[in-house]
Amino acid sequence: MVNVAILGFGTVGSGVAEVLTKNNAHIGEKVHNAVNLKYILDVREFPDSPFADKFVKDFSVIENDPEVQIVVETIGGARVAKDFTERSLRAGKSVVTSNKELVATCGYDLIELAKEKNVSYLFEASVGGGIPIIRPLSQCLAANELTEICGILNGTTNYILTRMIRSGISFEAALAEAQAKGYAEADPTADVEGHDACRKICILSSLAFGRHIYPDQVPTEGITAVTLADVAYAEGAGRKIKLLGRAIRRSDGRVCAYVAPHLVEGENPLAGVEDVFNAITVKGDAIGDVMFYGRGAGKLPTASAVVADVMDAAKHLGSRKYLEWGPGGADVTASPDELESRWYVRAQVGAEAAKALFPEASFLARPGASEGESAFLTAAMKRPELEEKLRGTQVLSLFRVL
Amino acid sequence: MVNVAILGFGTVGSGVAEVLTKNNAHIGEKVHNAVNLKYILDVREFPDSPFADKFVKDFSVIENDPEVQIVVETIGGARVAKDFTERSLRAGKSVVTSNKELVATCGYDLIELAKEKNVSYLFEASVGGGIPIIRPLSQCLAANELTEICGILNGTTNYILTRMIRSGISFEAALAEAQAKGYAEADPTADVEGHDACRKICILSSLAFGRHIYPDQVPTEGITAVTLADVAYAEGAGRKIKLLGRAIRRSDGRVCAYVAPHLVEGENPLAGVEDVFNAITVKGDAIGDVMFYGRGAGKLPTASAVVADVMDAAKHLGSRKYLEWGPGGADVTASPDELESRWYVRAQVGAEAAKALFPEASFLARPGASEGESAFLTAAMKRPELEEKLRGTQVLSLFRVL
Repeated sequence: MVNVAILGFGTVGSGVAEVLTKNNAHIGEKVHNAVNLKYILDVREFPDSPFADKFVKDFSVIENDPEVQIVVETIGGARVAKDFTERSLRAGKSVVTSNKELVATCGYDLIELAKEKNVSYLFEASVGGGIPIIRPLSQCLAANELTEICGILNGTTNYILTRMIRSGISFEAALAEAQAKGYAEADPTADVEGHDACRKICILSSLAFGRHIYPDQVPTEGITAVTLADVAYAEGAGRKIKLLGRAIRRSDGRVCAYVAPHLVEGENPLAGVEDVFNAITVKGDAIGDVMFYGRGAGKLPTASAVVADVMDAAKHLGSRKYLEWGPGGADVTASPDELESRWYVRAQVGAEAAKALFPEASFLARPGASEGESAFLTAAMKRPELEEKLRGTQVLSLFRVL
Repeated sequence: MVNVAILGFGTVGSGVAEVLTKNNAHIGEKVHNAVNLKYILDVREFPDSPFADKFVKDFSVIENDPEVQIVVETIGGARVAKDFTERSLRAGKSVVTSNKELVATCGYDLIELAKEKNVSYLFEASVGGGIPIIRPLSQCLAANELTEICGILNGTTNYILTRMIRSGISFEAALAEAQAKGYAEADPTADVEGHDACRKICILSSLAFGRHIYPDQVPTEGITAVTLADVAYAEGAGRKIKLLGRAIRRSDGRVCAYVAPHLVEGENPLAGVEDVFNAITVKGDAIGDVMFYGRGAGKLPTASAVVADVMDAAKHLGSRKYLEWGPGGADVTASPDELESRWYVRAQVGAEAAKALFPEASFLARPGASEGESAFLTAAMKRPELEEKLRGTQVLSLFRVL
């Protein structure tokens, strides 16, 4: 029998308890061993929960129980969660988590600690909710030299953009709707400012390119500046505005990683990813492009990814899974300013003046465009060159084209 | 050092040699051990190959060399390949393959043999080329009760259908084009009659539902009967014609599996999968829908999936990977006739007569429809009920609607 403890009985934690219980027979069969939920740690009381007899308030009960071999950390944040994760690993227990903040900020150290203790630190659920991406990246695509990862990594912002596009409602109205539906938190900052997508692209690119990339190395822009005017221009040109996390490995080995809204071409499979869905494309030297698509969040999808990791850890007790990367450093990344692309520019400038600045620009149209406003796509160039050309022009919006 | 032998130096086999060599340093790092290509078995001579010194003609050299721990079988077919696979497993070597025919027809027996010998039998490359699907199905989605698998599993037929839709050329012309481009074989039967897709849905559904499903349990229809008239009707209704492999687990545990052309709704992500691309959707009780997308064939994508399996086997020498299912049997499957769906019917029948037969039908239109021809979508019903209604009507085409 393998004993499991869950830390934190929030949305994901309670989902893990539910999936572990509901599919228990099926899980035991696949693991070739019974998997038993022994403790749930939470400071709150849950007297009416079917799991009421499993609750403990003191982490040391779990830490000191040698029968607990796997700890599921669904507390979130990088403080208490970090302390409990370290103590669990030091006590020789494998840890499974959905905590992207902790993995993005402390992943390398925790992986090293797990290595030292010959246990596993697994985090499939930290990116893409239930979409399998961590294991495919680390195992199935292992024979490839990976060159790029690009994805719609945050369901809340994708829902907001989809509503703006489909129903022509403003960012604020779409956000309020997302909050009413439970897709966005009361404080939506982490989603709409791109921090959540930033943590996810950090994890994906660390895994893909082999060195830890930290959130403060990834310039991050959210969707608060996306207007209905931009949506309308994009629509008129058969394109969609999407918030993308991207990481590109340059030929010198450095990685350009960033999060920003993009104008995505209609034929790109990412353009068709709507509502709360996520999709992640991976480019490798042998495989070409592959894409993974599904619900990027939600209680049961995320819980099912956590439980799959629990099953994997349960099958590898006494050994460990290879899921790792090297240390970070200033030499790991390069500024995305170095990255050429076409740009979407919306500016308070006449078409003639814009043409003089960007002779190769292709102009976009929208119904009801305001006087003196132009929107156009530039030729491929780096950001500093673009900004140089735009000096003195009143720029209203500026996004890369994918 | 881990020594590898490749059986068969065709498209995939030579790709495996290329990927193993080109990315050798990177592979060794990930495996924490050097991976060395020791032999290539082929009856032909390759004096100018960079691997010329590795060729052998006698399988027993490989079989009897205890240094060879992993055998890559890329011979194809289910005769010689089966013999060599069995002998390799019996000699205590792990086997990695891209051979869908062998896995679909003998998978259960070969997995059992591998289990007995405590080695691995891995076949990620047998479905979806380089798209990770076998490992995600067996590991990442393991916590789910899976209910349905549905996919575009054959790139050749998807290319042909895409050409018919985009350029309005006939099936025969599109096939000739696919042959000229090297996407279709001189004898295209296995692709266009659906046998290739059938083998792949057998492997996926065996893995997802836990019992071996054999090709002769899967009613299979190819795309040779798809006409430009059908393509035009579908187009007019915002739908695409796609060859799908489907397997649905009924509540009694039996599986309805079949291969046939379908009319796919425009919003379904499978509708946007074009050219030689493949996509596989998986439905689970916790995860909802996830989709895997990429190049379903080709030398390097397929080779990279084989090499990823080689790496996995190399990391687990002396133990084995859990990739398995139970024995087959007549009680595993149920006829897809039991499966309700809407149907696309094109028939030599007047609209009034069609309406009398199917009062709920919605009619489709195409430019230049011939006199007396009607095309319509029925309400959801089982096939026997549909056929009963159509008795005496001259049916020209009949596809399910997805």
